Amino acid sequence: MSTPQPRRAVYFVSDSTGITAETLGNALLSNFPGLTFLRHTIPFVDSVGGARDVVRGIADAHAAGLDPILFTTTKDASVSDALAAAPATRIDLLQGHLTELENCLATTATEQLGRFHTVGDPEQYFRRMRAVEYAIEHDDGQSMRALDIADVIIVAPSRCGKTPTTMYLALQYRLLVANYPLTDDDDPGDGLPRDVARYASRCFGLTTTPLRLSQVRHERRPSSRYSSLAQCTRELRRAEILYRATGIPYLNSSTKSVEEMSAVILQTLKLRP
Amino acid sequence: MSTPQPRRAVYFVSDSTGITAETLGNALLSNFPGLTFLRHTIPFVDSVGGARDVVRGIADAHAAGLDPILFTTTKDASVSDALAAAPATRIDLLQGHLTELENCLATTATEQLGRFHTVGDPEQYFRRMRAVEYAIEHDDGQSMRALDIADVIIVAPSRCGKTPTTMYLALQYRLLVANYPLTDDDDPGDGLPRDVARYASRCFGLTTTPLRLSQVRHERRPSSRYSSLAQCTRELRRAEILYRATGIPYLNSSTKSVEEMSAVILQTLKLRP
Repeated sequence: MSTPQPRRAVYFVSDSTGITAETLGNALLSNFPGLTFLRHTIPFVDSVGGARDVVRGIADAHAAGLDPILFTTTKDASVSDALAAAPATRIDLLQGHLTELENCLATTATEQLGRFHTVGDPEQYFRRMRAVEYAIEHDDGQSMRALDIADVIIVAPSRCGKTPTTMYLALQYRLLVANYPLTDDDDPGDGLPRDVARYASRCFGLTTTPLRLSQVRHERRPSSRYSSLAQCTRELRRAEILYRATGIPYLNSSTKSVEEMSAVILQTLKLRP
Repeated sequence: MSTPQPRRAVYFVSDSTGITAETLGNALLSNFPGLTFLRHTIPFVDSVGGARDVVRGIADAHAAGLDPILFTTTKDASVSDALAAAPATRIDLLQGHLTELENCLATTATEQLGRFHTVGDPEQYFRRMRAVEYAIEHDDGQSMRALDIADVIIVAPSRCGKTPTTMYLALQYRLLVANYPLTDDDDPGDGLPRDVARYASRCFGLTTTPLRLSQVRHERRPSSRYSSLAQCTRELRRAEILYRATGIPYLNSSTKSVEEMSAVILQTLKLRP
Protein backbone atom coordinates (compact mmCIF):
# COMPACT_ATOMS: atom_id res chain seq x y z
CA MET A 1 0.00 0.00 0.00
CA SER A 2 1.45 3.36 -1.00
CA THR A 3 1.72 6.27 1.38
CA PRO A 4 -1.28 8.55 0.91
CA GLN A 5 -0.33 11.81 -0.74
CA PRO A 6 -0.58 14.81 1.56
CA ARG A 7 -3.17 17.34 0.58
CA ARG A 8 -1.97 20.89 -0.06
CA ALA A 9 -4.09 24.00 0.25
CA VAL A 10 -3.61 26.32 -2.71
CA TYR A 11 -4.69 29.95 -2.79
CA PHE A 12 -5.09 32.12 -5.89
CA VAL A 13 -5.13 35.68 -4.59
CA SER A 14 -5.70 38.68 -6.82
CA ASP A 15 -6.60 42.34 -6.55
CA SER A 16 -8.98 41.85 -9.46
CA THR A 17 -11.07 38.95 -10.78
CA GLY A 18 -8.55 36.24 -9.96
CA ILE A 19 -8.79 34.76 -13.42
CA THR A 20 -5.15 35.25 -14.36
CA ALA A 21 -3.94 33.90 -11.01
CA GLU A 22 -6.24 30.89 -11.27
CA THR A 23 -5.37 30.18 -14.88
CA LEU A 24 -1.63 30.37 -14.56
CA GLY A 25 -1.59 28.79 -11.11
CA ASN A 26 -3.61 25.83 -12.36
CA ALA A 27 -1.46 25.56 -15.48
CA LEU A 28 1.54 25.18 -13.17
CA LEU A 29 -0.22 22.70 -10.87
CA SER A 30 -1.30 20.55 -13.80
CA ASN A 31 2.32 19.46 -14.06
CA PHE A 32 1.91 17.55 -10.80
CA PRO A 33 -1.03 15.30 -11.57
CA GLY A 34 -0.36 12.86 -8.74
CA LEU A 35 -0.89 15.39 -5.97
CA THR A 36 -4.11 16.58 -4.34
CA PHE A 37 -4.72 20.31 -4.16
CA LEU A 38 -7.54 22.06 -2.29
CA ARG A 39 -8.04 25.23 -4.30
CA HIS A 40 -9.34 28.60 -3.12
CA THR A 41 -9.68 31.65 -5.36
CA ILE A 42 -9.86 34.96 -3.53
CA PRO A 43 -10.46 37.90 -5.86
CA PHE A 44 -10.65 41.64 -5.15
CA VAL A 45 -7.96 41.66 -2.46
CA ASP A 46 -6.99 45.29 -2.90
CA SER A 47 -6.55 46.50 0.67
CA VAL A 48 -4.31 45.67 3.59
CA GLY A 49 -7.38 44.65 5.61
CA GLY A 50 -8.43 42.23 2.89
CA ALA A 51 -4.91 40.85 2.71
CA ARG A 52 -4.89 40.25 6.46
CA ASP A 53 -8.15 38.28 6.20
CA VAL A 54 -6.50 36.12 3.59
CA VAL A 55 -3.46 35.60 5.80
CA ARG A 56 -5.70 34.47 8.68
CA GLY A 57 -7.39 31.90 6.44
CA ILE A 58 -4.05 30.62 5.25
CA ALA A 59 -2.78 30.38 8.83
CA ASP A 60 -5.76 28.16 9.67
CA ALA A 61 -4.91 25.90 6.75
CA HIS A 62 -1.30 25.78 7.87
CA ALA A 63 -2.34 24.86 11.40
CA ALA A 64 -4.42 22.05 9.92
CA GLY A 65 -1.32 20.63 8.28
CA LEU A 66 -2.26 21.62 4.72
CA ASP A 67 1.10 23.27 3.93
CA PRO A 68 -0.35 26.13 1.89
CA ILE A 69 0.85 27.47 -1.44
CA LEU A 70 -0.05 31.04 -2.30
CA PHE A 71 -0.19 32.27 -5.92
CA THR A 72 -0.58 36.02 -6.22
CA THR A 73 -1.11 38.63 -8.91
CA THR A 74 -1.48 41.59 -6.57
CA LYS A 75 0.37 44.76 -7.52
CA ASP A 76 -0.04 47.13 -4.63
CA ALA A 77 3.09 47.07 -2.47
CA SER A 78 1.31 47.35 0.87
CA VAL A 79 -1.05 44.52 -0.05
CA SER A 80 1.89 42.37 -1.14
CA ASP A 81 3.72 43.15 2.08
CA ALA A 82 0.69 42.16 4.13
CA LEU A 83 0.43 38.87 2.24
CA ALA A 84 4.09 38.14 2.91
CA ALA A 85 3.10 37.32 6.49
CA ALA A 86 1.18 34.25 5.35
CA PRO A 87 2.67 30.89 6.42
CA ALA A 88 2.80 29.62 2.86
CA THR A 89 5.09 29.12 -0.09
CA ARG A 90 4.52 32.35 -1.96
CA ILE A 91 4.67 32.39 -5.74
CA ASP A 92 4.22 35.87 -7.19
CA LEU A 93 3.07 35.28 -10.74
CA LEU A 94 3.67 38.79 -11.97
CA GLN A 95 6.51 40.49 -10.21
CA GLY A 96 9.57 38.97 -11.79
CA HIS A 97 8.16 39.27 -15.28
CA LEU A 98 6.97 42.79 -14.68
CA THR A 99 10.50 43.88 -13.85
CA GLU A 100 11.82 42.13 -16.96
CA LEU A 101 9.27 43.99 -19.04
CA GLU A 102 10.02 47.32 -17.42
CA ASN A 103 13.69 46.87 -18.26
CA CYS A 104 12.98 45.84 -21.82
CA LEU A 105 10.49 48.66 -22.40
CA ALA A 106 12.69 51.20 -20.59
CA THR A 107 9.72 52.48 -18.66
CA THR A 108 7.90 51.72 -15.45
CA ALA A 109 4.56 50.00 -15.10
CA THR A 110 1.60 52.17 -14.24
CA GLU A 111 0.28 51.89 -10.74
CA GLN A 112 -3.15 50.70 -11.86
CA LEU A 113 -4.30 47.68 -9.91
CA GLY A 114 -4.25 44.74 -12.31
CA ARG A 115 -6.93 46.01 -14.62
CA PHE A 116 -6.62 43.43 -17.34
CA HIS A 117 -9.88 41.61 -16.89
CA THR A 118 -11.79 44.77 -16.17
CA VAL A 119 -13.98 46.67 -18.54
CA GLY A 120 -11.43 48.78 -20.35
CA ASP A 121 -12.88 49.23 -23.76
CA PRO A 122 -16.68 49.59 -24.14
CA GLU A 123 -16.29 48.71 -27.81
CA GLN A 124 -14.94 45.28 -26.84
CA TYR A 125 -17.93 44.83 -24.55
CA PHE A 126 -20.37 45.60 -27.35
CA ARG A 127 -18.59 43.27 -29.74
CA ARG A 128 -18.70 40.50 -27.21
CA MET A 129 -22.41 41.02 -26.51
CA ARG A 130 -23.09 41.09 -30.23
CA ALA A 131 -21.08 37.87 -30.78
CA VAL A 132 -22.93 36.01 -28.02
CA GLU A 133 -26.33 37.12 -29.28
CA TYR A 134 -25.37 36.17 -32.83
CA ALA A 135 -24.29 32.73 -31.63
CA ILE A 136 -27.58 32.13 -29.83
CA GLU A 137 -29.66 33.30 -32.77
CA HIS A 138 -27.73 31.13 -35.23
CA ASP A 139 -27.46 28.06 -33.01
CA ASP A 140 -28.31 24.68 -34.47
CA GLY A 141 -29.43 26.01 -37.85
CA GLN A 142 -32.35 27.86 -36.24
CA SER A 143 -31.79 30.99 -38.27
CA MET A 144 -30.12 31.85 -41.58
CA ARG A 145 -30.81 35.54 -41.11
CA ALA A 146 -27.23 36.81 -40.95
CA LEU A 147 -25.37 33.68 -41.97
CA ASP A 148 -23.59 35.65 -44.67
CA ILE A 149 -21.58 37.57 -42.09
CA ALA A 150 -20.54 34.56 -40.03
CA ASP A 151 -16.80 34.31 -39.37
CA VAL A 152 -17.15 30.56 -38.78
CA ILE A 153 -19.90 28.03 -39.36
CA ILE A 154 -19.45 24.87 -37.33
CA VAL A 155 -21.16 21.80 -38.75
CA ALA A 156 -21.58 18.38 -37.17
CA PRO A 157 -24.12 15.76 -36.20
CA SER A 158 -26.15 16.54 -33.10
CA ARG A 159 -24.21 16.57 -29.80
CA CYS A 160 -20.70 16.60 -31.19
CA GLY A 161 -19.91 19.80 -29.33
CA LYS A 162 -20.98 22.55 -31.76
CA THR A 163 -22.67 24.75 -29.19
CA PRO A 164 -20.01 24.99 -26.45
CA THR A 165 -17.32 25.62 -29.07
CA THR A 166 -19.50 28.28 -30.70
CA MET A 167 -20.08 30.04 -27.38
CA TYR A 168 -16.41 29.93 -26.47
CA LEU A 169 -15.35 31.46 -29.78
CA ALA A 170 -17.97 34.18 -29.33
CA LEU A 171 -17.05 35.04 -25.76
CA GLN A 172 -13.31 34.66 -25.96
CA TYR A 173 -12.63 36.00 -29.44
CA ARG A 174 -15.80 37.97 -30.22
CA LEU A 175 -16.22 36.09 -33.50
CA LEU A 176 -19.58 35.72 -35.21
CA VAL A 177 -20.10 31.98 -35.13
CA ALA A 178 -23.07 30.02 -36.42
CA ASN A 179 -23.55 26.31 -36.14
CA TYR A 180 -25.51 23.92 -38.28
CA PRO A 181 -26.55 20.32 -37.70
CA LEU A 182 -25.86 17.41 -40.03
CA THR A 183 -28.73 14.98 -39.88
CA ASP A 184 -29.59 11.56 -41.15
CA ASP A 185 -31.36 13.24 -44.06
CA ASP A 186 -28.10 14.69 -45.33
CA ASP A 187 -26.47 12.48 -47.93
CA PRO A 188 -22.72 13.09 -48.16
CA GLY A 189 -23.04 12.69 -51.91
CA ASP A 190 -25.09 15.88 -52.02
CA GLY A 191 -22.34 17.98 -50.43
CA LEU A 192 -22.88 20.39 -47.56
CA PRO A 193 -26.48 21.26 -46.60
CA ARG A 194 -27.85 23.80 -49.05
CA ASP A 195 -28.12 26.61 -46.49
CA VAL A 196 -24.40 26.56 -45.76
CA ALA A 197 -22.90 25.23 -48.98
CA ARG A 198 -22.18 28.69 -50.38
CA TYR A 199 -20.16 29.49 -47.25
CA ALA A 200 -18.01 26.36 -47.44
CA SER A 201 -14.81 28.38 -47.01
CA ARG A 202 -15.92 29.34 -43.51
CA CYS A 203 -17.12 25.91 -42.46
CA PHE A 204 -15.42 23.74 -39.89
CA GLY A 205 -16.57 20.22 -39.09
CA LEU A 206 -16.61 18.26 -35.85
CA THR A 207 -16.61 14.54 -35.33
CA THR A 208 -16.19 12.32 -32.28
CA THR A 209 -16.08 8.65 -31.36
CA PRO A 210 -19.31 6.64 -31.74
CA LEU A 211 -19.09 5.58 -28.11
CA ARG A 212 -18.74 9.13 -26.81
CA LEU A 213 -21.59 10.34 -29.00
CA SER A 214 -23.80 7.51 -27.89
CA GLN A 215 -23.10 8.32 -24.22
CA VAL A 216 -23.85 12.01 -24.67
CA ARG A 217 -27.02 11.36 -26.67
CA HIS A 218 -28.15 8.80 -24.11
CA GLU A 219 -28.30 11.60 -21.51
CA ARG A 220 -30.83 13.39 -23.63
CA ARG A 221 -32.82 10.48 -25.07
CA PRO A 222 -32.02 7.23 -23.35
CA SER A 223 -32.59 3.94 -25.15
CA SER A 224 -33.50 5.58 -28.44
CA ARG A 225 -32.39 4.94 -31.98
CA TYR A 226 -30.90 8.46 -31.80
CA SER A 227 -28.51 7.37 -29.04
CA SER A 228 -27.80 3.87 -30.30
CA LEU A 229 -24.22 2.99 -31.13
CA ALA A 230 -25.28 1.91 -34.62
CA GLN A 231 -26.93 5.22 -35.40
CA CYS A 232 -24.02 7.22 -33.99
CA THR A 233 -21.52 5.21 -35.99
CA ARG A 234 -23.54 5.76 -39.13
CA GLU A 235 -23.95 9.52 -38.69
CA LEU A 236 -20.30 10.08 -37.85
CA ARG A 237 -19.09 8.04 -40.80
CA ARG A 238 -21.32 10.00 -43.16
CA ALA A 239 -20.17 13.29 -41.64
CA GLU A 240 -16.49 12.42 -42.11
CA ILE A 241 -17.11 11.35 -45.70
CA LEU A 242 -18.79 14.70 -46.25
CA TYR A 243 -15.92 16.69 -44.73
CA ARG A 244 -13.34 14.91 -46.85
CA ALA A 245 -15.43 15.17 -50.00
CA THR A 246 -16.02 18.91 -49.58
CA GLY A 247 -12.51 19.58 -48.29
CA ILE A 248 -13.64 21.39 -45.15
CA PRO A 249 -11.30 21.07 -42.16
CA TYR A 250 -12.54 19.04 -39.21
CA LEU A 251 -11.57 17.90 -35.73
CA ASN A 252 -12.38 15.11 -33.33
CA SER A 253 -13.99 16.71 -30.29
CA SER A 254 -13.62 13.64 -28.08
CA THR A 255 -9.92 14.28 -27.60
CA LYS A 256 -9.94 18.03 -27.34
CA SER A 257 -11.26 20.65 -24.99
CA VAL A 258 -13.36 23.55 -26.22
CA GLU A 259 -10.29 25.78 -25.79
CA GLU A 260 -8.17 23.54 -27.95
CA MET A 261 -10.76 23.20 -30.69
CA SER A 262 -11.21 26.95 -30.75
CA ALA A 263 -7.48 27.52 -31.05
CA VAL A 264 -7.28 25.05 -33.94
CA ILE A 265 -10.29 26.62 -35.68
CA LEU A 266 -8.73 30.07 -35.38
CA GLN A 267 -5.43 28.91 -36.80
CA THR A 268 -6.94 26.85 -39.59
CA LEU A 269 -9.34 29.50 -40.82
CA LYS A 270 -6.76 32.25 -40.13
CA LEU A 271 -9.14 34.10 -37.89
CA ARG A 272 -6.90 35.51 -35.18
CA PRO A 273 -7.77 39.20 -34.71
CA MET B 1 4.91 67.53 -30.42
CA SER B 2 5.78 64.34 -28.52
CA THR B 3 8.00 61.64 -29.96
CA PRO B 4 5.82 58.90 -31.45
CA GLN B 5 5.93 55.72 -29.40
CA PRO B 6 7.78 52.87 -31.09
CA ARG B 7 5.68 49.84 -31.89
CA ARG B 8 6.79 46.53 -30.40
CA ALA B 9 6.00 43.12 -31.80
CA VAL B 10 4.83 40.72 -29.10
CA TYR B 11 4.66 36.95 -29.51
CA PHE B 12 2.74 34.54 -27.28
CA VAL B 13 4.20 31.13 -28.05
CA SER B 14 2.90 27.92 -26.53
CA ASP B 15 3.07 24.20 -27.06
CA SER B 16 -0.67 24.02 -26.48
CA THR B 17 -3.61 26.39 -27.06
CA GLY B 18 -1.72 29.58 -26.22
CA ILE B 19 -4.43 30.75 -23.87
CA THR B 20 -2.29 30.86 -20.74
CA ALA B 21 0.55 32.64 -22.55
CA GLU B 22 -1.85 35.15 -24.07
CA THR B 23 -3.72 35.76 -20.83
CA LEU B 24 -0.72 36.29 -18.62
CA GLY B 25 1.28 38.09 -21.29
CA ASN B 26 -1.57 40.52 -21.88
CA ALA B 27 -2.08 40.96 -18.14
CA LEU B 28 1.56 42.05 -17.93
CA LEU B 29 1.33 44.32 -20.99
CA SER B 30 -1.78 46.03 -19.63
CA ASN B 31 0.52 47.75 -17.14
CA PHE B 32 2.00 49.76 -19.99
CA PRO B 33 -1.08 51.40 -21.48
CA GLY B 34 0.81 54.11 -23.34
CA LEU B 35 2.70 51.72 -25.60
CA THR B 36 1.61 50.07 -28.85
CA PHE B 37 1.97 46.32 -29.15
CA LEU B 38 1.45 44.22 -32.28
CA ARG B 39 0.36 40.88 -30.88
CA HIS B 40 0.78 37.42 -32.39
CA THR B 41 -0.36 34.21 -30.74
CA ILE B 42 1.30 31.05 -32.01
CA PRO B 43 -0.12 27.89 -30.45
CA PHE B 44 0.89 24.24 -30.86
CA VAL B 45 4.63 24.90 -31.10
CA ASP B 46 5.73 21.50 -29.90
CA SER B 47 8.61 20.64 -32.22
CA VAL B 48 12.02 22.07 -33.00
CA GLY B 49 10.89 22.66 -36.61
CA GLY B 50 7.90 24.64 -35.40
CA ALA B 51 10.11 26.63 -33.06
CA ARG B 52 12.46 27.50 -35.91
CA ASP B 53 9.53 28.80 -37.99
CA VAL B 54 8.62 31.04 -35.08
CA VAL B 55 12.22 32.26 -34.80
CA ARG B 56 12.22 33.18 -38.50
CA GLY B 57 9.06 35.21 -38.10
CA ILE B 58 10.50 37.01 -35.09
CA ALA B 59 13.73 37.71 -36.98
CA ASP B 60 11.68 39.41 -39.70
CA ALA B 61 9.98 41.59 -37.11
CA HIS B 62 13.34 42.42 -35.61
CA ALA B 63 14.71 43.40 -39.00
CA ALA B 64 11.70 45.66 -39.44
CA GLY B 65 12.65 47.51 -36.28
CA LEU B 66 9.82 46.12 -34.14
CA ASP B 67 12.08 45.06 -31.23
CA PRO B 68 10.20 41.84 -30.47
CA ILE B 69 9.15 40.52 -27.07
CA LEU B 70 8.58 36.78 -26.76
CA PHE B 71 6.35 35.30 -24.04
CA THR B 72 6.56 31.51 -23.81
CA THR B 73 4.89 28.68 -21.96
CA THR B 74 6.69 25.87 -23.78
CA LYS B 75 7.98 23.04 -21.62
CA ASP B 76 10.02 20.85 -23.91
CA ALA B 77 13.71 21.63 -23.48
CA SER B 78 14.64 21.26 -27.17
CA VAL B 79 11.80 23.55 -28.20
CA SER B 80 12.85 26.11 -25.60
CA ASP B 81 16.44 25.91 -26.77
CA ALA B 82 15.39 26.48 -30.37
CA LEU B 83 13.33 29.52 -29.34
CA ALA B 84 16.33 30.96 -27.50
CA ALA B 85 17.80 31.83 -30.90
CA ALA B 86 15.07 34.41 -31.49
CA PRO B 87 16.25 38.05 -31.56
CA ALA B 88 13.79 39.08 -28.87
CA THR B 89 13.46 39.77 -25.18
CA ARG B 90 12.41 36.37 -23.95
CA ILE B 91 10.04 36.09 -20.99
CA ASP B 92 9.41 32.50 -19.97
CA LEU B 93 6.13 32.61 -18.07
CA LEU B 94 6.39 29.20 -16.52
CA GLN B 95 9.95 28.19 -15.89
CA GLY B 96 10.88 30.11 -12.80
CA HIS B 97 7.62 29.33 -11.07
CA LEU B 98 7.77 25.68 -12.05
CA THR B 99 11.12 25.32 -10.28
CA GLU B 100 9.72 27.07 -7.20
CA LEU B 101 6.83 24.63 -7.19
CA GLU B 102 9.06 21.63 -7.68
CA ASN B 103 11.10 22.70 -4.68
CA CYS B 104 8.07 23.31 -2.53
CA LEU B 105 6.38 20.06 -3.53
CA ALA B 106 9.64 18.09 -3.25
CA THR B 107 8.95 16.43 -6.57
CA THR B 108 9.58 17.02 -10.24
CA ALA B 109 7.04 18.12 -12.81
CA THR B 110 5.81 15.52 -15.25
CA GLU B 111 7.09 15.81 -18.76
CA GLN B 112 3.63 16.26 -20.27
CA LEU B 113 3.53 19.13 -22.68
CA GLY B 114 1.46 21.88 -21.02
CA ARG B 115 -1.80 19.99 -21.01
CA PHE B 116 -3.83 22.38 -18.91
CA HIS B 117 -6.25 23.63 -21.50
CA THR B 118 -6.63 20.23 -23.08
CA VAL B 119 -9.47 17.83 -22.63
CA GLY B 120 -8.43 16.07 -19.42
CA ASP B 121 -11.66 15.11 -17.81
CA PRO B 122 -14.64 14.08 -20.00
CA GLU B 123 -16.92 14.76 -17.04
CA GLN B 124 -15.89 18.42 -17.12
CA TYR B 125 -16.66 18.49 -20.84
CA PHE B 126 -20.16 17.10 -20.29
CA ARG B 127 -20.82 19.55 -17.48
CA ARG B 128 -19.75 22.42 -19.64
CA MET B 129 -21.92 21.31 -22.57
CA ARG B 130 -24.84 20.87 -20.21
CA ALA B 131 -24.30 24.32 -18.70
CA VAL B 132 -24.18 26.02 -22.10
CA GLU B 133 -27.30 24.25 -23.32
CA TYR B 134 -29.09 25.13 -20.10
CA ALA B 135 -28.12 28.76 -20.51
CA ILE B 136 -29.44 28.90 -24.05
CA GLU B 137 -32.69 27.18 -23.13
CA HIS B 138 -33.27 29.49 -20.17
CA ASP B 139 -32.16 32.69 -21.87
CA ASP B 140 -34.36 35.76 -21.53
CA GLY B 141 -37.15 34.03 -19.67
CA GLN B 142 -37.91 31.82 -22.67
CA SER B 143 -38.30 28.70 -20.57
CA MET B 144 -39.10 27.93 -16.94
CA ARG B 145 -38.62 24.21 -17.49
CA ALA B 146 -35.68 23.62 -15.16
CA LEU B 147 -35.53 26.95 -13.38
CA ASP B 148 -35.66 25.15 -10.05
CA ILE B 149 -32.14 23.79 -10.54
CA ALA B 150 -30.56 27.06 -11.61
CA ASP B 151 -27.43 28.01 -9.66
CA VAL B 152 -27.97 31.67 -10.59
CA ILE B 153 -30.83 33.63 -12.12
CA ILE B 154 -29.70 36.95 -13.56
CA VAL B 155 -32.44 39.56 -13.81
CA ALA B 156 -32.30 42.95 -15.50
CA PRO B 157 -33.99 45.15 -18.07
CA SER B 158 -33.31 44.25 -21.69
CA ARG B 159 -29.71 44.79 -22.88
CA CYS B 160 -28.03 45.27 -19.53
CA GLY B 161 -25.68 42.38 -20.21
CA LYS B 162 -27.57 39.34 -18.89
CA THR B 163 -26.73 37.05 -21.78
CA PRO B 164 -22.94 37.47 -22.10
CA THR B 165 -22.59 37.15 -18.31
CA THR B 166 -24.78 34.04 -18.35
CA MET B 167 -22.72 32.43 -21.11
CA TYR B 168 -19.45 33.25 -19.39
CA LEU B 169 -20.58 31.71 -16.09
CA ALA B 170 -21.72 28.60 -17.97
CA LEU B 171 -18.54 28.17 -20.00
CA GLN B 172 -16.01 29.18 -17.42
CA TYR B 173 -17.54 27.75 -14.27
CA ARG B 174 -20.05 25.22 -15.63
CA LEU B 175 -22.84 26.76 -13.57
CA LEU B 176 -26.51 26.41 -14.52
CA VAL B 177 -27.48 30.00 -15.18
CA ALA B 178 -30.86 31.31 -16.29
CA ASN B 179 -31.67 34.90 -17.06
CA TYR B 180 -34.94 36.76 -16.90
CA PRO B 181 -35.94 40.16 -18.26
CA LEU B 182 -37.48 42.98 -16.25
CA THR B 183 -39.92 44.87 -18.41
CA ASP B 184 -42.00 48.00 -18.22
CA ASP B 185 -44.92 45.83 -17.10
CA ASP B 186 -43.08 44.90 -13.90
CA ASP B 187 -44.02 47.18 -11.04
CA PRO B 188 -41.30 47.22 -8.36
CA GLY B 189 -44.07 47.31 -5.77
CA ASP B 190 -45.07 43.79 -6.82
CA GLY B 191 -41.65 42.32 -6.08
CA LEU B 192 -39.72 40.05 -8.43
CA PRO B 193 -41.60 38.63 -11.46
CA ARG B 194 -43.73 35.74 -10.36
CA ASP B 195 -41.76 33.09 -12.27
CA VAL B 196 -38.55 33.85 -10.38
CA ALA B 197 -39.82 35.20 -7.07
CA ARG B 198 -39.61 31.83 -5.32
CA TYR B 199 -35.92 31.63 -6.29
CA ALA B 200 -35.02 35.05 -4.93
CA SER B 201 -32.04 33.68 -3.01
CA ARG B 202 -30.39 32.76 -6.31
CA CYS B 203 -31.18 35.99 -8.11
CA PHE B 204 -28.64 38.59 -9.07
CA GLY B 205 -29.57 41.89 -10.65
CA LEU B 206 -27.82 44.04 -13.23
CA THR B 207 -28.14 47.74 -13.86
CA THR B 208 -26.22 50.19 -16.03
CA THR B 209 -26.17 53.88 -16.87
CA PRO B 210 -29.13 55.28 -18.83
CA LEU B 211 -26.76 56.61 -21.49
CA ARG B 212 -25.04 53.26 -22.01
CA LEU B 213 -28.35 51.40 -22.16
CA SER B 214 -29.73 53.88 -24.63
CA GLN B 215 -26.68 53.46 -26.88
CA VAL B 216 -26.87 49.67 -26.79
CA ARG B 217 -30.62 49.63 -27.41
CA HIS B 218 -30.21 52.11 -30.24
CA GLU B 219 -28.14 49.54 -32.11
CA ARG B 220 -31.08 47.18 -32.09
CA ARG B 221 -33.98 49.59 -32.47
CA PRO B 222 -32.83 53.05 -33.48
CA SER B 223 -35.03 56.05 -32.68
CA SER B 224 -37.56 54.06 -30.73
CA ARG B 225 -39.17 54.60 -27.36
CA TYR B 226 -37.33 51.44 -26.30
CA SER B 227 -33.97 53.13 -26.87
CA SER B 228 -34.91 56.60 -25.69
CA LEU B 229 -32.97 58.02 -22.77
CA ALA B 230 -36.22 58.68 -20.92
CA GLN B 231 -37.36 55.07 -21.20
CA CYS B 232 -33.97 53.71 -20.22
CA THR B 233 -33.81 56.00 -17.20
CA ARG B 234 -37.25 54.88 -16.13
CA GLU B 235 -36.59 51.17 -16.50
CA LEU B 236 -33.27 51.31 -14.69
CA ARG B 237 -34.67 53.33 -11.82
CA ARG B 238 -37.52 50.84 -11.39
CA ALA B 239 -35.08 47.91 -11.56
CA GLU B 240 -32.87 49.38 -8.84
CA ILE B 241 -35.86 50.09 -6.62
CA LEU B 242 -36.88 46.47 -7.08
CA TYR B 243 -33.41 45.11 -6.22
CA ARG B 244 -33.22 47.17 -3.06
CA ALA B 245 -36.78 46.34 -2.04
CA THR B 246 -36.29 42.59 -2.49
CA GLY B 247 -32.75 42.62 -1.11
CA ILE B 248 -31.20 40.85 -4.10
CA PRO B 249 -27.59 41.80 -4.83
CA TYR B 250 -26.91 43.79 -7.99
CA LEU B 251 -24.11 45.30 -10.05
CA ASN B 252 -23.62 48.06 -12.56
CA SER B 253 -22.51 46.40 -15.80
CA SER B 254 -21.33 49.64 -17.41
CA THR B 255 -18.20 49.70 -15.29
CA LYS B 256 -17.39 46.03 -15.26
CA SER B 257 -16.36 43.37 -17.71
CA VAL B 258 -18.18 40.07 -17.98
CA GLU B 259 -15.26 38.46 -16.14
CA GLU B 260 -15.52 40.88 -13.27
CA MET B 261 -19.27 40.58 -12.95
CA SER B 262 -18.98 36.81 -12.95
CA ALA B 263 -16.34 36.88 -10.23
CA VAL B 264 -18.53 39.15 -8.08
CA ILE B 265 -21.60 36.97 -8.66
CA LEU B 266 -19.65 33.87 -7.63
CA GLN B 267 -18.38 35.51 -4.48
CA THR B 268 -21.67 37.07 -3.51
CA LEU B 269 -23.77 33.96 -3.99
CA LYS B 270 -20.94 31.77 -2.63
CA LEU B 271 -20.87 29.69 -5.76
CA ARG B 272 -17.21 28.86 -6.22
CA PRO B 273 -16.91 25.14 -6.90
